[in-house]
Amino acid sequence: MVAANTITGNMNIARLRRTNPFSVLKNVAITGGTHGNELSGIYMVQNFLRNPTLIKRSSFEACAVASNVEATKLERRYVDVDMNRCFLLEDLEKWKKSDEESLNVEQARAVILDELLGPKASQSPSTDFIFDLHNSTANTGRLLCFHEDDDFAFEVAAYLKSCDPQITAVHWPSGDVPFLPTVARSGMTVEVGPVAHSTLKTAIYNKTKDLISNALDYIDLHNDYVLRKGDDIKKVKIEVPMAVRLCHVPYPRNNSGNITAFIHDDLQGIKELQNGSTITEGCPIFQTLNGETIKFEPGEYNLTEEDMKAGIYPMFVNEAAYYEKDVAFYLTKRIHKTGEYLVREEKSKI
Amino acid sequence: MVAANTITGNMNIARLRRTNPFSVLKNVAITGGTHGNELSGIYMVQNFLRNPTLIKRSSFEACAVASNVEATKLERRYVDVDMNRCFLLEDLEKWKKSDEESLNVEQARAVILDELLGPKASQSPSTDFIFDLHNSTANTGRLLCFHEDDDFAFEVAAYLKSCDPQITAVHWPSGDVPFLPTVARSGMTVEVGPVAHSTLKTAIYNKTKDLISNALDYIDLHNDYVLRKGDDIKKVKIEVPMAVRLCHVPYPRNNSGNITAFIHDDLQGIKELQNGSTITEGCPIFQTLNGETIKFEPGEYNLTEEDMKAGIYPMFVNEAAYYEKDVAFYLTKRIHKTGEYLVREEKSKI
Repeated sequence: MVAANTITGNMNIARLRRTNPFSVLKNVAITGGTHGNELSGIYMVQNFLRNPTLIKRSSFEACAVASNVEATKLERRYVDVDMNRCFLLEDLEKWKKSDEESLNVEQARAVILDELLGPKASQSPSTDFIFDLHNSTANTGRLLCFHEDDDFAFEVAAYLKSCDPQITAVHWPSGDVPFLPTVARSGMTVEVGPVAHSTLKTAIYNKTKDLISNALDYIDLHNDYVLRKGDDIKKVKIEVPMAVRLCHVPYPRNNSGNITAFIHDDLQGIKELQNGSTITEGCPIFQTLNGETIKFEPGEYNLTEEDMKAGIYPMFVNEAAYYEKDVAFYLTKRIHKTGEYLVREEKSKI
Repeated sequence: MVAANTITGNMNIARLRRTNPFSVLKNVAITGGTHGNELSGIYMVQNFLRNPTLIKRSSFEACAVASNVEATKLERRYVDVDMNRCFLLEDLEKWKKSDEESLNVEQARAVILDELLGPKASQSPSTDFIFDLHNSTANTGRLLCFHEDDDFAFEVAAYLKSCDPQITAVHWPSGDVPFLPTVARSGMTVEVGPVAHSTLKTAIYNKTKDLISNALDYIDLHNDYVLRKGDDIKKVKIEVPMAVRLCHVPYPRNNSGNITAFIHDDLQGIKELQNGSTITEGCPIFQTLNGETIKFEPGEYNLTEEDMKAGIYPMFVNEAAYYEKDVAFYLTKRIHKTGEYLVREEKSKI
């Protein structure tokens, strides 16, 4: 039974309402500028708003949404607080009942976006899938982040990986998470890097645009399959290694709280979550301001021998916005999962 | 005759008071955090303040100065205005006479730094040389920027180039310029890149630290030479190509003023000011959000055939902070100059 008036109940709703591999998707949103200095998504959304045919597909409505407009105007990550930490169900429910004057810029905007694209508390949110576009200064490549229980997001990821084998994927932490896409039935954060905040790199922009275009094509194909059950559409299996966060590694600091060591050049720019991009005991991870090397000690992070043997993959190494969160990088492990996606078979020419 | 009570007169003072190849330097300053999100200089200054022996040399006093402290606290380039545009003599003279309350954060700090390290209007400023440490998101490598008439800065650049042939150098625009080092007799801005603002890359930090260490060693040697005229110190010649700014290339924009095209991937990351890093007619320089290429047309920038033949070198390509200044990149030409620096000869072992 779903106890709709409790947070736990609402979390159950969140799971029950998921877009799933048997759902038809009617509304898809692409959001950019959730962080106001991540130009790739900001300009992609601007471009989609000016050229709506780029995201138009026959079987569903797609819209582009500039998410943190105030921060984007200021070319800052946020005005008051990180908006991509403002979408916990509990917070949204509280803020909806608050005076607007008592909310800061991002809280107020989160409530509006929740109304527009969700609401998160509803069994019937208006949006079936959200792609939220982000940049990172870390060498993330093209990284998809979504819920472990979001089967349709995983299906989309599987298809995207078939188009571009360099694409990687990570599960959000379990339970409720405060990220924008969670107001829709399903969705994912698309992280692309490395790119300096407040700049746009066209090569990375192009690849992200292709990724979104492929994803929209796929949703169209998926809808066709669910509605018609046409036998010209087949299922294909693909291995999709999923990263799972174990913990984060903080920056070394002195007694005054100042950072005393930064990412070591051996770790800087590692091709994150790619095959072989692991760190092992004794790998240089930090260098102090005077040039001393600090090495990786698995014991400090409660990693077992088994964890190390399976492979530890660093993620979000030297992300500018994570200095204030005291995250030098995350440690992740890999889960080997098999995904399944649809392919329209070419008609025989005979 | 120097008319000390006029700006022109003061500009003459600026030239007359220069540290020159025959001066003994008594006070050298290293400033960092002139832009509050350029971590390399910020942390280098912090480190020098904690470990003053790193910059101690026998023949002069060296100090490290955190320049824009308020912006650094906020981890932003600036609070109100770009502080590295606040050191025009005319402005400093005006602000010195103003109520402190009428000045914004950077204007007030510029006045304090001018008092501490200059003043710029004086024939006898307290500081003989300033190294002001900056980062760039552009692939500047290690770029030294200084006055065309600053012979001692050129001598230091010549020595640094002998240590690290990849080091490049550019003249500031002629006349008075609003950059921090100009409050001292002589000085230079040290730009290092590519690095995302609000991050520190240890490889780049290390090279900058070596550069400063070498420069301080050189000033020590120079003082020894001027004071002793010892015949164990010889002069060595070196070719130092100097870049000279011709103009900037703005971002293409639509009627609403929005940027419509960004740096083309062919130009992104070009090894700036290095041999062969030129652009020629027809080179892709921008890509629109829809993927069209915009090519380089020398005529649009009043470049002659002669200019093109001599070679046009782009500089500060895709620098985050220059989006608001509408500078996609600068065009520079090269002047071939021969520098001279001092070397202490090894004593013969016979």
